[in-house]
Amino acid sequence: MRVALKEAEAAVAQDEIPIGACVVHKDQIVAQNHNRTQELNDPLAHAELLVINELMTKGSKYLYDCTLYVTLEPCLMCAGAIILAKVGRVVYGAKDPKSGVAGSLLNVFQDKSYNHHPELKSGVLAAECALLLTDFFHKKR
Amino acid sequence: MRVALKEAEAAVAQDEIPIGACVVHKDQIVAQNHNRTQELNDPLAHAELLVINELMTKGSKYLYDCTLYVTLEPCLMCAGAIILAKVGRVVYGAKDPKSGVAGSLLNVFQDKSYNHHPELKSGVLAAECALLLTDFFHKKR
Repeated sequence: MRVALKEAEAAVAQDEIPIGACVVHKDQIVAQNHNRTQELNDPLAHAELLVINELMTKGSKYLYDCTLYVTLEPCLMCAGAIILAKVGRVVYGAKDPKSGVAGSLLNVFQDKSYNHHPELKSGVLAAECALLLTDFFHKKR
Repeated sequence: MRVALKEAEAAVAQDEIPIGACVVHKDQIVAQNHNRTQELNDPLAHAELLVINELMTKGSKYLYDCTLYVTLEPCLMCAGAIILAKVGRVVYGAKDPKSGVAGSLLNVFQDKSYNHHPELKSGVLAAECALLLTDFFHKKR
């Protein structure tokens, strides 16, 4: 999660919403990125989607044996991508009461309707993850 | 929807699951594609995500004044992407009782928890859209 937080901090320097993610496979970081919606002019350029896409283009198809760390609770699109990519484990920091679907609006990872259920851990370094976001939006005002 | 169906038919020829999509803006087709999960070895390469991504890379950011036609009810990831890209209107063909979240498992487009609510029409050429899929999977068996 420290690596994901570093990514989120790097996002601030680029005036991006500070959300970072990384993927760990066998104790090694295999992808890391942050939200790039401003840079790419693309509302879909969320940190989680970017790291999953990077691993797909590198030749992975499914990520059963990977852990995805992300500083903010995933949204509908990212949670859907996590299920499709069959990510084995998801660890997130702060809750997102407005858009999060891994405990806030819904908990799609524990919903038996879907055909993959990543192991889920939430609240890791939550205060630090949330503070980056509140500071960012506070300064924007 | 005829164009989306043609895309789905083209998918069959490439041994891809036959799901097609297109985006219409001011009576013009501005993007069209089909499921490419096999070709790209990427479980995220759904028709809807591919057409939205194409428009993003062409410089669109939001698709308020566009209609997305897709032969099958969108999944969690694609519905999330549709909300993030603020697609104005979604028209789909066949229902997807296993993974669809625009009327089957959920109806996220009419859920007030989310901050964008595309106009929704379903069941357009549903029988033809569904037949392509059932034929495809029948031949696979």
